[in-house]
Amino acid sequence: MKKFVNDPKNFVREMLEGVALANPETLRYVPEYNLIMRADGPRQDKVSIVQGSGSGHEPAHVMCVGKGMLDAACPGDIFAAPPTDYVYETIKLLASPKGVLLLVNNYTGDRMAFEMAQELAEAEEITVRTLFIDDDVSVEDSTYTVGRRGVAGNFFVMKAVGAAAERGADLDDVFRIGEKVNAVTRTMGIALTACTPPAKGSPLFDLPADEIEVGVGIHGEPGRRREKMLPANAIVDQLLDPVVKDLPYTSGDSVALMVNGLGGTPLGELYLLYGRAHKRLAEQGIEIRRSYVGEYCTSLDMAGASLTLVRLDGEITELLAEPAEIAIRVF
Amino acid sequence: MKKFVNDPKNFVREMLEGVALANPETLRYVPEYNLIMRADGPRQDKVSIVQGSGSGHEPAHVMCVGKGMLDAACPGDIFAAPPTDYVYETIKLLASPKGVLLLVNNYTGDRMAFEMAQELAEAEEITVRTLFIDDDVSVEDSTYTVGRRGVAGNFFVMKAVGAAAERGADLDDVFRIGEKVNAVTRTMGIALTACTPPAKGSPLFDLPADEIEVGVGIHGEPGRRREKMLPANAIVDQLLDPVVKDLPYTSGDSVALMVNGLGGTPLGELYLLYGRAHKRLAEQGIEIRRSYVGEYCTSLDMAGASLTLVRLDGEITELLAEPAEIAIRVF
Repeated sequence: MKKFVNDPKNFVREMLEGVALANPETLRYVPEYNLIMRADGPRQDKVSIVQGSGSGHEPAHVMCVGKGMLDAACPGDIFAAPPTDYVYETIKLLASPKGVLLLVNNYTGDRMAFEMAQELAEAEEITVRTLFIDDDVSVEDSTYTVGRRGVAGNFFVMKAVGAAAERGADLDDVFRIGEKVNAVTRTMGIALTACTPPAKGSPLFDLPADEIEVGVGIHGEPGRRREKMLPANAIVDQLLDPVVKDLPYTSGDSVALMVNGLGGTPLGELYLLYGRAHKRLAEQGIEIRRSYVGEYCTSLDMAGASLTLVRLDGEITELLAEPAEIAIRVF
Repeated sequence: MKKFVNDPKNFVREMLEGVALANPETLRYVPEYNLIMRADGPRQDKVSIVQGSGSGHEPAHVMCVGKGMLDAACPGDIFAAPPTDYVYETIKLLASPKGVLLLVNNYTGDRMAFEMAQELAEAEEITVRTLFIDDDVSVEDSTYTVGRRGVAGNFFVMKAVGAAAERGADLDDVFRIGEKVNAVTRTMGIALTACTPPAKGSPLFDLPADEIEVGVGIHGEPGRRREKMLPANAIVDQLLDPVVKDLPYTSGDSVALMVNGLGGTPLGELYLLYGRAHKRLAEQGIEIRRSYVGEYCTSLDMAGASLTLVRLDGEITELLAEPAEIAIRVF
């Protein structure tokens, strides 16, 4: 599998340099700790929002740093948690009198790194809270996870807490909002192909040419089952039904609907999936008030998609509608 | 090759329905002529900007409709020019006392459809001008083209004329700006893999596992040569040098630099390419004042990328910086 890569060991660093060079006015790359932070940070007048995870999920999370979203992201290597000491240094750099909120997708490696870093930071009297995101309904435990996995729904948590922090909310309130959004967010994904990490150079798992992985994780973890390839509408139904039933979302609910590409699927196909999901929800009396179609949390070059629903109330809707200035430029 | 598709004959229509459902306040789908237009259009107080082309290049062009960009896009089927009568109906729908500007990437089929439609519209006394975009430096003539091909650089033409039209510029001035931007824009692309049209279900051309197509077209047309796979930095150099020499861009120039993904390449790899291109240009004394990294003009699920440079002056810089509200939502 061909990829744009020099030495795979330098892939993440070279990517981060590119992110900073493309956004010189808004972002800063700190090579000592391999992190991306806002150029105008650290800000002392707001809660600092930090997310970290393995790389390979871009735009999550290094391209989600900016006004109204993250203050910093500390990525690990491809699909690997960041080292504890880098997370600790990130917290120190971003320390604010109003506190630091760490967002962590629920994977064992990430939890360990962030929990240890939080302890180290607290020993230096930095106020830190950590919120774990676990929106994936497909499986309960998984290859790298106790409990549910955190996947594309993390976007909504980032967006809501980012907006609240920008408005000046205190740490307790920002944490409350993050927990609330996570509690009403559900996701399920599907893989048409495996993904290829640059250092491996070959697909991470074996998926026959006529099969799909229903409920796949964003690191290629197994989902609920393998199936023969299906028409797009049938795939949408297989994702949407478990998501809707899980919370459950019911007639009269207002929701945000996200169709997230996993990296190798073209935008046109994502909009086709979106159309089916939108109509199915409307038939069930669920009102879609905000729509998100594109790549938000990927799995390298995996062909596939995930569907996310968020149940909206006035507060969440308002926070999602706030402006954010992030590294993904579309005009 | 697995894709999210129901009946391939309905792929484009289902995609367009999805685009409209995801953007109910800003976009309207007109199924009779298979076009996407602004929900607040047609506007009588501005030049209407219309682009059409084959589908399969999303977000170009149906997701580039919105305030400050296109007023409408009339797509054909995958990689096929729109029918003349649909283009004609689009022009009639979008007719404005200030005139209509058609943007057409330079391919023979598209030229024919748009030139005939323009004649039909002029017979009804609608004022129309057509601008052909031909930014691809890789080959002079090509499979579907006399002269150079129009590729990802069309984004900058759309953006500049869209901004000028929104400000109220007249048709002559909008046309002048479009020509000027096209004249200072150059692109070259590379394919790591072929792409797979939904109706074909298999790759459009044959590219061995260890080879790349240097100068590929966005419909999989041959480029300058096949090469063995190279490190990312060497690939950037092979794209950037012919682009820089073509205009030429020289020390002291200010430019916009775009790294455009062709559909199957993850965002992380695009930023890695961007970093190399940025440094190479800086070494040559060329100042990058605007950066664009992402998918702007794709070739279905092709793994690959293109590099575009635009030489900036005050007028172009100002127009590119104007806001645009388009269908690609990132927050």
